[in-house]
Amino acid sequence: MARLVMKFGGTSVADLDRIRNVARHVKREVDAGHQVAVVVSAMSGKTNELVALCRGASILHDAREYDAVVASGEQVTSGLLAIALQAIGVDARSWQGWQLPIRTDGAHGAARIESIDGTRVIEQMEAGRVAVVAGFQGIGPDGRISTLGRGGSDTSAVAVAAAIRADRCDIYTDVDGVYTTDPRMVPKARRLDKVSFEEMLEMASLGSKVLQVRSVELAMVHGVRTFVRSSFEDPENPKTQPNGDPFGTLICDEDEIVEQEVVTGIAYSKDEAQISIRRVADQPGIAASVFVPLAEANINVDMIVQNVASNGAETDITFTVPAADYERAMKVIEDRKAEIGYLLLEGSTGVCKVSVIGVGMRSHAGVAAQAFKALAAKGINIRAITTSEIKISVLIEDVYTELAVRTLHSVYGLDKG
Amino acid sequence: MARLVMKFGGTSVADLDRIRNVARHVKREVDAGHQVAVVVSAMSGKTNELVALCRGASILHDAREYDAVVASGEQVTSGLLAIALQAIGVDARSWQGWQLPIRTDGAHGAARIESIDGTRVIEQMEAGRVAVVAGFQGIGPDGRISTLGRGGSDTSAVAVAAAIRADRCDIYTDVDGVYTTDPRMVPKARRLDKVSFEEMLEMASLGSKVLQVRSVELAMVHGVRTFVRSSFEDPENPKTQPNGDPFGTLICDEDEIVEQEVVTGIAYSKDEAQISIRRVADQPGIAASVFVPLAEANINVDMIVQNVASNGAETDITFTVPAADYERAMKVIEDRKAEIGYLLLEGSTGVCKVSVIGVGMRSHAGVAAQAFKALAAKGINIRAITTSEIKISVLIEDVYTELAVRTLHSVYGLDKG
Repeated sequence: MARLVMKFGGTSVADLDRIRNVARHVKREVDAGHQVAVVVSAMSGKTNELVALCRGASILHDAREYDAVVASGEQVTSGLLAIALQAIGVDARSWQGWQLPIRTDGAHGAARIESIDGTRVIEQMEAGRVAVVAGFQGIGPDGRISTLGRGGSDTSAVAVAAAIRADRCDIYTDVDGVYTTDPRMVPKARRLDKVSFEEMLEMASLGSKVLQVRSVELAMVHGVRTFVRSSFEDPENPKTQPNGDPFGTLICDEDEIVEQEVVTGIAYSKDEAQISIRRVADQPGIAASVFVPLAEANINVDMIVQNVASNGAETDITFTVPAADYERAMKVIEDRKAEIGYLLLEGSTGVCKVSVIGVGMRSHAGVAAQAFKALAAKGINIRAITTSEIKISVLIEDVYTELAVRTLHSVYGLDKG
Repeated sequence: MARLVMKFGGTSVADLDRIRNVARHVKREVDAGHQVAVVVSAMSGKTNELVALCRGASILHDAREYDAVVASGEQVTSGLLAIALQAIGVDARSWQGWQLPIRTDGAHGAARIESIDGTRVIEQMEAGRVAVVAGFQGIGPDGRISTLGRGGSDTSAVAVAAAIRADRCDIYTDVDGVYTTDPRMVPKARRLDKVSFEEMLEMASLGSKVLQVRSVELAMVHGVRTFVRSSFEDPENPKTQPNGDPFGTLICDEDEIVEQEVVTGIAYSKDEAQISIRRVADQPGIAASVFVPLAEANINVDMIVQNVASNGAETDITFTVPAADYERAMKVIEDRKAEIGYLLLEGSTGVCKVSVIGVGMRSHAGVAAQAFKALAAKGINIRAITTSEIKISVLIEDVYTELAVRTLHSVYGLDKG
């Protein structure tokens, strides 16, 4: 007997047929003797529809009202799945965020979970009843419905798993796991059996949209073993790994991964824009004068590169922002020209960030050199480079994205089956 | 300064344009210095859509899950209206049933309101903030969302009005008041300025679908002055009565109606079926043996007629049920033939009940005789008659409905302007 959290996203509950399919997945685990809590998203398209209604009512809208409106999507799915489970003889009940309760902070629209009371769910699970929890939502300190921001149901699932001390959190999605890179771009991409929390964090934040970043952070902090697996498998007889684990990708502690590859995956992030501020004074406070106004304008800055100034007096700062925020970001910097004190402002859209990720590179020299050499051999110019302990990112012109990803995927031996 | 409850039904909040229109109605009252609480239904069509989803998930479904799913409709409207109000500078917030809370009994799917805590709404209204309350819902003794059954938002509105001691409860709808009869059938039908609670109860239960019966009961018990008025009036300049009251129909205590007409209105109820049980023993327990099984089968019996037995031994019982339940009702009675002990079971669909209503008839003799004479003059056969203190109902063949209604409307002087 194990205690499981099963999470199903929007496409897995898109209509009544898919909801019935989910119910069969749940029944399989219940029949195997497990205690089960399920976390569900809104039916696909529903959240967008509700968001559009809020925007239609007013462009600037009260985030608390937005939350009340948008959270209704998961409320509906949780009730429908409980009904579908009961219809096939599985005892179940729905739980809204405010009922458990799932307590969040007061940042309506993008709230963070602060605590979950798992007592009642555990009681009911022990009595043989499946808890169907509405994902993506909680209750704020003001006693009002809060939502976690898009993709928040993954976070709900991991948080519920931590609260009820689940043995495993299975994230059912429309892919069968985490891949070495985007399989739509690289047909030779391989499914990873295991990936460490740290690597997954880099992959998630770099645009592999399998899991929400916050959910991976939470899984890492609480040590929740999280499986990414397909909801399109036969609900009664899904494929399994030789060791009995689900067929999919286990996201787990690095220690659990015995044979660690040097490089685990290649991620990329398109639709970026690059902004370079030329010849700023190399003195304390300059970086703050650039990035504080950008943060205040709610512009998400990703890569930041600043080289050591050659003459000890002036330097260049380069950073990337989402292409959609490019014009706004340029204006913010132009408006502060006097304050920042730069000579020239340059920028361009149409760039892409490609990243090589792997915890193994901590103990292996030459990983970066290998990437640079391979890209050079293909004639791909590298505009900027940043690195962390387990990641190397390069900024390139975005027409070269596919070539760069395929080249790197191959050079690190990820093509091999 | 008055304290008002304004209730808007599904067609009044059918889309964002209509919701913005509602917001203007509310702003008018706020600008006039009133304290306002608003009660809203789901956007029209929404509740049916959610009910269909529940039925699709399973024909037999847990009423508690049904409630969680269906209550989401009003949740969405309440949030959207709060946003629309804020957008035009009216301070407002939404309240879900569980937030006030509106406490109901545990009869999920058709719950009755037991109590409403108006404290917080009053506090906020006094601070100048409009409370937008999701209608049709509350929280049951089990801490789960409950719904009041179809049309329940009227009941929510009246109950909220009672809880916050409102001076008036305005029910905005797609008609501009209560009429002497159905204006689609009788062009000469006139809008009533006032109608007593008792009369409205008879009219509501007889198929004038303006207000839910339960809401009228509640208004009567708590003495809530309730106006039925049109949401299609100009929101900034709605028509008013000479005395400043809204243009519409005031449902109020009989005492408030100075010039009471003998007959206030003619109601009718089509799609009825009549069932007659011939020659049953005239002894205690017979009526129970007929109607208890029907109640258990959830069949709503309307008219019941039992005449005094002519020979003191056997009698006939006639009753009506909705045409949709006719086959089921006949089967229930057939299955219990031995138990009930009757000679013959007869029935027919295609009958209509026409009723003459008026509190004035309590003090006027001959009101019934006038009806029978008028119907006879038109050659309309009366199949059965029942009367209460303020109502006379006759059962007729339904092809004569329009003729009967027009005849009675005219004979009691309701045609006059």
